[in-house]
Amino acid sequence: MTNQRIPKRAEATLETMRKVFTLPEGDGSTLARLEREISENLLGFLRNHFASGDIAPANLEVDFKTSTIPEDPVFVSEQVDYLLSKVVSQSVHTASPSFIGHMTSAMPYFMVPLAKIMIPLNQNVVKIETSKAFTPLERQVIGMLHRLIYGGSDAFYDQWTQSSQHSLGVFCSGGTIANITGLWVARNRLLGPRGDFPGVADEGLGPALRHYGYDGLAVLVSKRGHYSLSKAANLLGLGRKELIAVPLSSSHKIDTKALRRELDQLKKRRIAPIAIVGIAGTTETGNVNPLDELANIAQDYQTAFHVDAAWGGPTLFSERYKGLLKGIERADSVVIDAHKQLYVPIGAGMVLFKNVEALSAVEHHANYIIRPGSRDIGKHTLEGSRPGMAMLVHSALRIIGRRGYEILIDLGIGKAGQFAKMIKASPCFEVITEPELNLLTYRYVPESVKAALMTATPETQIAINDVLSALTESIQKTQRQRGKTFVSRTRLEAQAYASQTVSVFRVVLANPLTTRQILSDILEEQRQDGEKLYVEEGMKATIEEILKTAARK
Amino acid sequence: MTNQRIPKRAEATLETMRKVFTLPEGDGSTLARLEREISENLLGFLRNHFASGDIAPANLEVDFKTSTIPEDPVFVSEQVDYLLSKVVSQSVHTASPSFIGHMTSAMPYFMVPLAKIMIPLNQNVVKIETSKAFTPLERQVIGMLHRLIYGGSDAFYDQWTQSSQHSLGVFCSGGTIANITGLWVARNRLLGPRGDFPGVADEGLGPALRHYGYDGLAVLVSKRGHYSLSKAANLLGLGRKELIAVPLSSSHKIDTKALRRELDQLKKRRIAPIAIVGIAGTTETGNVNPLDELANIAQDYQTAFHVDAAWGGPTLFSERYKGLLKGIERADSVVIDAHKQLYVPIGAGMVLFKNVEALSAVEHHANYIIRPGSRDIGKHTLEGSRPGMAMLVHSALRIIGRRGYEILIDLGIGKAGQFAKMIKASPCFEVITEPELNLLTYRYVPESVKAALMTATPETQIAINDVLSALTESIQKTQRQRGKTFVSRTRLEAQAYASQTVSVFRVVLANPLTTRQILSDILEEQRQDGEKLYVEEGMKATIEEILKTAARK
Repeated sequence: MTNQRIPKRAEATLETMRKVFTLPEGDGSTLARLEREISENLLGFLRNHFASGDIAPANLEVDFKTSTIPEDPVFVSEQVDYLLSKVVSQSVHTASPSFIGHMTSAMPYFMVPLAKIMIPLNQNVVKIETSKAFTPLERQVIGMLHRLIYGGSDAFYDQWTQSSQHSLGVFCSGGTIANITGLWVARNRLLGPRGDFPGVADEGLGPALRHYGYDGLAVLVSKRGHYSLSKAANLLGLGRKELIAVPLSSSHKIDTKALRRELDQLKKRRIAPIAIVGIAGTTETGNVNPLDELANIAQDYQTAFHVDAAWGGPTLFSERYKGLLKGIERADSVVIDAHKQLYVPIGAGMVLFKNVEALSAVEHHANYIIRPGSRDIGKHTLEGSRPGMAMLVHSALRIIGRRGYEILIDLGIGKAGQFAKMIKASPCFEVITEPELNLLTYRYVPESVKAALMTATPETQIAINDVLSALTESIQKTQRQRGKTFVSRTRLEAQAYASQTVSVFRVVLANPLTTRQILSDILEEQRQDGEKLYVEEGMKATIEEILKTAARK
Repeated sequence: MTNQRIPKRAEATLETMRKVFTLPEGDGSTLARLEREISENLLGFLRNHFASGDIAPANLEVDFKTSTIPEDPVFVSEQVDYLLSKVVSQSVHTASPSFIGHMTSAMPYFMVPLAKIMIPLNQNVVKIETSKAFTPLERQVIGMLHRLIYGGSDAFYDQWTQSSQHSLGVFCSGGTIANITGLWVARNRLLGPRGDFPGVADEGLGPALRHYGYDGLAVLVSKRGHYSLSKAANLLGLGRKELIAVPLSSSHKIDTKALRRELDQLKKRRIAPIAIVGIAGTTETGNVNPLDELANIAQDYQTAFHVDAAWGGPTLFSERYKGLLKGIERADSVVIDAHKQLYVPIGAGMVLFKNVEALSAVEHHANYIIRPGSRDIGKHTLEGSRPGMAMLVHSALRIIGRRGYEILIDLGIGKAGQFAKMIKASPCFEVITEPELNLLTYRYVPESVKAALMTATPETQIAINDVLSALTESIQKTQRQRGKTFVSRTRLEAQAYASQTVSVFRVVLANPLTTRQILSDILEEQRQDGEKLYVEEGMKATIEEILKTAARK
């Protein structure tokens, strides 16, 4: 602290501030004890500190009502006790092998100490002046993922990976920003400078559409496209209605004939497609679009091809399954999330570009950093200040290695197949979407209803399915609130029922610690809840009524 | 791991994966040793592991050329050794009290162990199913900052802080996303649903402009606006040329008369302003716009008022200086960066909205999360998956407290004043912009040139200033490469020289550990470098030549 004169009453606070910035917590402190616990037994720490039992969200909120910042500093120990009892204990055990509902799963042990090194380094990768080695490190990681996807030559990567005026891709906080960046680049390249026209980046969308003679812009993707694409369409000024949701094929992929029809329609409306988006692992069902065919269509219609492989990208590590993504190497841009199947903590997404010049379409400069000619990565990113997450991705790629990821991918997909078999073997469940990668969806159908449903008229099926949807939702909520295990739920058009939209359980099997026994326990828990709720919530009576009415007709 | 059958040759890799996800590094490992070092002596760790001496960025890159992901897993210890020798040692000591060039500074000690708890919890705040208590916690932090800025009543915060259908603001990865979000909301509110027209979010910018009868959209900000605003203008489809850069007043703020003129001009061009942006702490000079006056103008012209207080927001903690930000409480939206003057690690920005309904203009939903009616915060954020940084901000706000932040703010501003005095007391420096908050800019001017510059004709001044700019740049680079101390540089229109653009040193005095002695040492280092480079790089000869020519005229 400087030796400025300060009022006497502030002296105590000043002393606290001095301590806070210079003195570590003592060895006997709660924080030190927690740190040791995490280092020695991460899984145990997570298990031990989660409160069991359910608190409804509304009741949880009671503890977080105060909106005043305390006038005087609170002791670190007091805050830590507060966090443990009110926050940590009431957080979600996302790493639990029984938590198979979302895309957050186990974390490799080494991540935690590495993050502990990364955090105090507090590098800001927007510019080399606050990141130095983290800048070429991030470029290297981008190069590694680019090579995984595009498989360029050694000479290509020698030339471009560290080229200060180019970027093979950019890091960002996650898949949403990555998708937006990909489409931003596509929009700006489609409506770029031409002749005297400086391009959409400078002139804006109105003048750019007029100059190019379009009435609007569109993005095409299957109905299973991630909601970030709709955000992108809104943000980039296309409008959400110009995110064209193409119907699915019978295999839950994209109906490519319908895609061509939509493209023809757009032409008639003088709407220019900025990109066709292929999905390599849909968020809801894990299906992979026929990327090679989409690349052909993009070529035929002279539009960009963007692939959202936020989830499925690491499938490329698997010799056995990488063929599913054939054609990805023809994409103009590809999104991949490191905090999903690269097993890095949340906050790390990437978008890679085939063309080394692509990102110049969104390049920007300032006077004090990212000056023209500088090596600063920030000139090509949508975000500004960014942390050194590349260090964690780099470590994961090396410590897990290609073969390690291959095993993790193969295990997950294998496990999804096993789980589908278990579901089919049970008399009271029904698979709604088969696993292609490591995701599948299913629902609970009381044994007594199954046969009736099969033979019912379409009209009766609709009525029964609506009740079953309510039942699935009820089971999912019950299970979530109990907090022992977790699956998520979504609503899908079920192909077995003339595309009626039904509610389903959705599972994601990426946690290597999830065993067959755990999967079996989850099903048993759902079966028991289902049996109970079906009667208790009056659904049994409703379905019997529906069947009776149907029989009378 | 499941008991699937796997090929024999993969067994070793499988065993490695099992270890990686279940076994901590031993107590004697390098990682464990580093962790202890960080816990016991953070500042020492940072000092010890940075290599001194300069490596040119191009030479640094040599270590990061490989773009292949290793086939087999690398040992954790091998990766840690690699990181220490190649990455950590060559990163930037942003927390050093001698690093006064950018907005990254010291980190409170407690941040590191708290981050170590946050990382393995790996909550994803996009939805309550993966964040539970972190959702109301984040809402609480947003409420705290909202109260700091807008000072609403207790009843207001009781009603809205935890209201699941509203958001008083959103967290994001940093100020850039926060500014973009603020302007996205402003654009969508200006061109919102009206009668049969569903609004710009659905219909896109072209139809929205036609419906509302505008030829384009604009954002107005002083010439010192952050470059993220230009990114926003590009992204949102306005076009960078419609980010209207309003001239500065004599006090490096915004010329409000010129602002009104620009607004009148826009009207004539049928361009609708989506927002006037006020800056509370410009990135380059730390000046605060007259926010109250800007609020009046926004009211007069019926446009939104957005304040970029990414840097200066925490000035509100100071009884002595908060008056500088008077009028901020009238803004429709305010950006504040927690990773700047709230002393949180990089990756935490926020934007707060006065109107509790504002964020509905960018609301979005999906089938599997952020469903209508859910409590999921993700329905209002530009990003998707996000980490639980709110836990760190919450802890900082409580452990530092209002008075703690006040001291930090007062110390920084006081220190900037002292530094300005030191510069003025030196015969060979010149202050270019006086500190208003804790930033100032200055340059080196050889003593022998000072007097001549004062009395020179405007033409001669221009010639001399260009040489001095090259000298300042050269000194800054030399100092940066030496790596002992760091100031940044930028180019500004110097008001003392008829607004000629000159290069300047830029310092940010937010690190409480920066002492008067350090500041004096930095000046002395620059003086010595300046004296030397002035002669060695032939600038002395050039200036003598300029003066000789001038004398001849």
